[in-house]
Amino acid sequence: MDPKRSLTYRDAGVDIDSMDTALRRIAVAVRSTATPQTLSEVGSFGGMFRFPLGEWCDPVLVASVDGVGTKMKVAAAAHRFGTVGRDLVNHCVMDIFVQGARPLFFLDYVAGEKLDPEVVATLVDGVARGCREHGCALLGGETAEMPGVYAPGEYDLAGTIVGVVERERILDGRAGPPGRRVEPGDILIGLGSAGLHTNGYSLARKVLFERMGLTPDSMLPEAGVTVADALLAEHRSYFALLREPVEAGDVRALAHITGGGITDNLPRVLPDGVGARIRRDSWPVPPLFRLIGREGNVPEDDQYRTFNMGIGMIVIAAAAAASRVEAGLARAGERSWRIGEAVSGPRRVEYI
Amino acid sequence: MDPKRSLTYRDAGVDIDSMDTALRRIAVAVRSTATPQTLSEVGSFGGMFRFPLGEWCDPVLVASVDGVGTKMKVAAAAHRFGTVGRDLVNHCVMDIFVQGARPLFFLDYVAGEKLDPEVVATLVDGVARGCREHGCALLGGETAEMPGVYAPGEYDLAGTIVGVVERERILDGRAGPPGRRVEPGDILIGLGSAGLHTNGYSLARKVLFERMGLTPDSMLPEAGVTVADALLAEHRSYFALLREPVEAGDVRALAHITGGGITDNLPRVLPDGVGARIRRDSWPVPPLFRLIGREGNVPEDDQYRTFNMGIGMIVIAAAAAASRVEAGLARAGERSWRIGEAVSGPRRVEYI
Repeated sequence: MDPKRSLTYRDAGVDIDSMDTALRRIAVAVRSTATPQTLSEVGSFGGMFRFPLGEWCDPVLVASVDGVGTKMKVAAAAHRFGTVGRDLVNHCVMDIFVQGARPLFFLDYVAGEKLDPEVVATLVDGVARGCREHGCALLGGETAEMPGVYAPGEYDLAGTIVGVVERERILDGRAGPPGRRVEPGDILIGLGSAGLHTNGYSLARKVLFERMGLTPDSMLPEAGVTVADALLAEHRSYFALLREPVEAGDVRALAHITGGGITDNLPRVLPDGVGARIRRDSWPVPPLFRLIGREGNVPEDDQYRTFNMGIGMIVIAAAAAASRVEAGLARAGERSWRIGEAVSGPRRVEYI
Repeated sequence: MDPKRSLTYRDAGVDIDSMDTALRRIAVAVRSTATPQTLSEVGSFGGMFRFPLGEWCDPVLVASVDGVGTKMKVAAAAHRFGTVGRDLVNHCVMDIFVQGARPLFFLDYVAGEKLDPEVVATLVDGVARGCREHGCALLGGETAEMPGVYAPGEYDLAGTIVGVVERERILDGRAGPPGRRVEPGDILIGLGSAGLHTNGYSLARKVLFERMGLTPDSMLPEAGVTVADALLAEHRSYFALLREPVEAGDVRALAHITGGGITDNLPRVLPDGVGARIRRDSWPVPPLFRLIGREGNVPEDDQYRTFNMGIGMIVIAAAAAASRVEAGLARAGERSWRIGEAVSGPRRVEYI
C-alpha cells in the first residue's frame, strides 16, 4: 500500500455517492407509505408519528423486531430481491396482530458487505409495498455497508414494527380474562401458508442445494415450480382476513407459525393446563415440505418444529364462534382446516 | 455427505439448545429494564408497552433505527462485546433526543454467522444497561444465526428506539415556529465526544490496522491507551446533561454528530438561508483523530465529513440562552466549547 495515497471513506469501501442514488429511490418508496399521522420528512434524525390520541382509551403499543433469516441467501443466489421486504413486513405484522394490534409504523435495517444501491432500493420497495398494504408508515430505516462483517455478496434485512391495541382488547389466549382465554374444547382453525414463509431456510437450503444438488432455477420435483419460486414465495399476511373476527371478539387466540413450527408456537398462546391436539392428516402438507422431509431424512418431530408444514396461522375460537370465523373465511374465498382442538393437559402440542 | 444421515435444524448450523442458555440470561437483562409501562413478559410474540395517555396532550412518537457499524469488527477482534450494546442505545437515544423526544422503549437485533450464546448475552447486557440508564424498556429483541451470510466470527448489532415528545415541544431548528428555529447569530456549543462513537470505523480500521500495522493491543501513539480502548470508547449520551435546558426552551436545535460528521449533520437542523461558521481551532481535536488524519493522509475535508473530530453533540441556542446552557453544563462538570455561530447564507458548514 502506497503510504502517500490519500484515504477517504470511499477508499475504505463505503461509497457515499452511489448510496445517494439509492437513497433517492428509497425516499420515494418511504413517502408512498405516509399516513396522516406521519409528521417527519425523509432524512430526519428520527421519524415522527403523531399518536392518534382521541381514538384510544387505554392504548398499548405492541412492538416486534425480526429478520428474514437465510431466506435472504436464496434471494441473493437467485438475485431476486423484490419480495423479501414484503416477507419481512408481513411477518412482523403477524407478530403483533396475534396480540390484537394493528400496525402503526415500521423501520427497516439493510446491511451487507457492499451495498448495491439497486439492491437496497429494491429491498426497500418491497418493505414499502408491505407497509402500504397494511396502512403502516415506513417511518425510518438504516443502510449499513459493513465490509468484512458480511460474506461477499450477502445482505441482511431486519425490521421493527410498532402497532397499537386497546388494552381491554389485547388478544391473550394464555392469560386473558376468563371467557377470553383458550379453553379445552376450543377449535383450532388452520390457515394455509404460502411456503416456508421466513423460517427453516438453513435446513431447506442444505437439503435442496447441498444434498439434492438443485439450483435456484431447477424445477422442484412434484411442485411444478422452480426451487427459487418455491423458496421465495411471499410470507402471507392474514391481517385483512382476520381483522373483522378479531374485532368482533370471535377469536380467543392467534398463533403465528414461525421458527419452532406448530410445536413451539402454539403453546405460547395456551394457558397452563391446556394443551393442543393436532390431527396431522387434517390438512394437505404441501409438496415442498414433504420433499425436504423425505430427501433430508428429517425426523417428523423435527419437521413440525422447524417448518410451518403448510399452516401459517392458527386461529383458536370457541366452538360457536369458530363456525362464524370459518364462514367469514369461506366468504373471502379462503380455504381453512379444522386441524385440532384445545384439550385439558400439559401445555404442549400432541400430534395424532 | 451420507444421504442416510438424518438432518435436523442443529445439523444445519442452528443450535437451539445453546441458544436457550443465552435466552435465559437475556431474559434477566430484559426484565431489569422493565418500567411501569411494560406489560408483556419475555417471550411474547410482540412486546407490550402501555402508553401513558394522561401525561400527554398531543404526543408524537419519534423512532429511529441504527447499528454500530464496523465498530463491531473491533469488538470482535478484541473479543470485548460488553460495550457496543450501550453504544447502540446511546446512539439511538441521541437520534431521537435531537428532536426533543425522551425514550420509551427499545428493540435489538443480533445476528451472526454462528451465535456464541455468551457473546449474545454480553451484547444484550450492554443494551440493557444503556436502556436502564435512560429509563427505557428493552421491549423486544431478535437473535438470528445466519450461516453463510455473515463472515466467520463476525456479528452485527442493530436496534430501534421509540420515544415521545409533546407536539408543540418538538425541537425543530430547521422548520420550527419563528423564535424557535435557528437564526443567524445563534451560538453553537460543542460537547466532547468519547472517541469515534459509532462512525468512521471502516476508515479508522484501515489506517490503524492495515496501514500502520497496529493490533487491538498496541498502544496508541500519543494517546496513552491501547487501540482497542480508544476505538471501543463508548458513545456518550448527553440526555441527562441536556434534558433540562431542552425542556426549559433554552435550546433551538441539537445536532448529533454521526456519520457525515459536523459537515453533513449540522445542516440537517438549519433553516434555508442559514449556514454555520465553525472555528476549527476552538476545541482540541483528540489525538486519535489527528493520528488517523495524518497517518492515513486523509484530506481535512474528508476528516470532518467522516469523523466527529471530538465533538459528539452541538447545541444551538440564542445568545442569552447559550450562557444559561453553558452555566448548567459547567455546574454538571461538563466541558463545552463555543465552536461557532449560525450565519446568514447557504445552508452549509463553513470552516474557518
